[in-house]
Amino acid sequence: MNIELTALKFSQGKLLLLDQTRLPQEEHWLKIETTKDMVSAIQKLQVRGAPMIGVAASLMIAKLAIDKVSIAEILEDSQKLFEARPTAVNLMTCIKRLQKMIFEGTHRDQLIVEARKIASEDIELCDRIAKNGEPLINDGEGILTHCNTGSLATAGIGTAFGIIRKAHESGKKIHVYVDETRPLLQGGRLTAWECEKFGIPYTLICDNMAASLMAQGKIQKVFVGSDRIAMNGDFANKIGTYSVAVLANYHKIPFYVAAPYTTVDTECVSGEQIPIEQRHADEVRGATGVFGKITWAPLRSEVYNPSFDVTPFSLISGWVLDSALLGPAEIQASALKKQTR
Amino acid sequence: MNIELTALKFSQGKLLLLDQTRLPQEEHWLKIETTKDMVSAIQKLQVRGAPMIGVAASLMIAKLAIDKVSIAEILEDSQKLFEARPTAVNLMTCIKRLQKMIFEGTHRDQLIVEARKIASEDIELCDRIAKNGEPLINDGEGILTHCNTGSLATAGIGTAFGIIRKAHESGKKIHVYVDETRPLLQGGRLTAWECEKFGIPYTLICDNMAASLMAQGKIQKVFVGSDRIAMNGDFANKIGTYSVAVLANYHKIPFYVAAPYTTVDTECVSGEQIPIEQRHADEVRGATGVFGKITWAPLRSEVYNPSFDVTPFSLISGWVLDSALLGPAEIQASALKKQTR
Repeated sequence: MNIELTALKFSQGKLLLLDQTRLPQEEHWLKIETTKDMVSAIQKLQVRGAPMIGVAASLMIAKLAIDKVSIAEILEDSQKLFEARPTAVNLMTCIKRLQKMIFEGTHRDQLIVEARKIASEDIELCDRIAKNGEPLINDGEGILTHCNTGSLATAGIGTAFGIIRKAHESGKKIHVYVDETRPLLQGGRLTAWECEKFGIPYTLICDNMAASLMAQGKIQKVFVGSDRIAMNGDFANKIGTYSVAVLANYHKIPFYVAAPYTTVDTECVSGEQIPIEQRHADEVRGATGVFGKITWAPLRSEVYNPSFDVTPFSLISGWVLDSALLGPAEIQASALKKQTR
Repeated sequence: MNIELTALKFSQGKLLLLDQTRLPQEEHWLKIETTKDMVSAIQKLQVRGAPMIGVAASLMIAKLAIDKVSIAEILEDSQKLFEARPTAVNLMTCIKRLQKMIFEGTHRDQLIVEARKIASEDIELCDRIAKNGEPLINDGEGILTHCNTGSLATAGIGTAFGIIRKAHESGKKIHVYVDETRPLLQGGRLTAWECEKFGIPYTLICDNMAASLMAQGKIQKVFVGSDRIAMNGDFANKIGTYSVAVLANYHKIPFYVAAPYTTVDTECVSGEQIPIEQRHADEVRGATGVFGKITWAPLRSEVYNPSFDVTPFSLISGWVLDSALLGPAEIQASALKKQTR
């Protein structure tokens, strides 16, 4: 079985990643040979999106198994993958699932089957999220989204963006407002690229323009993805998500988070416990891509550059999961505890 | 009398502007020969900041008078200056003041005196704003500001940034959080440059990171400038200001606007009447500067790019003017009507 996704290809032990740092200017495929290559691709955000990182890391384990790497080494490498990025829990969930099999003495071939299963499950999870979330969007609405949560960020059609895409494909006339998502511009580069690829009408904005559009009544719903959802409903997502949530709250615009169960961290009580990755100052001092590395700020400027922020329960209208659309009352009644496989 | 400001030099009919699009990488002075040069510099934001645009345009009139241009031509050129940018009212206020003198048959020499007076008045206005606003800042506070409102944006020490600078110079240990201010990065380029120039401790952030800092209790006050203040207290300022105001309101952080009386538009009843300039899509599709013109978004992406947004009365804690610090009750009692010379 070959796996062919928007941002990943895997067949006969050959693992390729679409280098997302080069989009939309170049569609360049990276050949991943070693665990070190994969960890580097994850850390450089060449592969990104919480669900996609989990899928890519799992398929790395499958590749090691195909390459007849010893079980001891696979276990060692799995730990390196586990630690590649600290915030997105999907990576950890997927790796733990495979590690558990290793500890149980499962044969290498079964690891390959399981990793492929993780990928195909993610496709299904996206479809179910889209099915649960699509009815929230009405014909004619303006939808704001932040970062990229589409087919580049998952194995399937996406989480938040999958809902938007499904609404578009079902014939609803919608307009998507795309936050550019500084500093790494996942909105301006990747979501804009996906909107064009799938013919979805969109307008690109700087992150600081969303409030102005909300005040003008142009935005009826907000959909974002997540890197980790705590048991009390708080969630971590790309920096700027919390800002959008506060703005939506002020303008009385429903704000939804969409994610598969692999994003729900049953061991995490609240958002305060989610570790937030800090990234390099140069990302804020300028912009980097195939267009080169540019710096507009003073070279030694002190910078604050968290990759994520935490949005609290109180600002969220609904949690669109693969299993169900949950409201605040259900979250308070511990519905997230049941969000396991 | 020579005029020597951070961003403008004027002596013996020679008018130079510090090209603010090239900062902080290059300190390049533009020689302004004609009204067309000045209009172009205003439209390209080579000279910017509501008070500074008014001062620069006034000194252009002075230059025309020194160059013995006919009164009829000066009047014609003054109208071109008047129309160079639509939102900032200071430009219009200053030009109307000089046009009134022309209509009254004032001699060219008097225009030169008056234009120089506009510049020196702006220096004093900044000092008075700083004096009125500085007591609002306490020792040890974190202050958020948006765009650039310092010595590059005015003839003096600035409006919002002038207050911050005065607090620093008076020995208060403060820390400034600088919004980069997409798309044209006046914060990341210009305010960061001024912080370094004046030794004020600062941290540069992307616009979407302010909410996260507020939630962490790092920001105690917000100070911003203005391009036009309406009679009901609403004001227009650089895009993203309204977003900051909503975030400050949610986090119960006092939010102050600082401006001289030249920014108060007595003919404007409310913010709804302020025209908002739309700028070129390429500004949002990428970034432009001495580092080159780069584009990261799809080339034909549709873009929303207002230069300003409007912050309503209800989100503002205080209006720091040259004459006084006004609170909401005073604004409601029509205090702004009295803000003329």
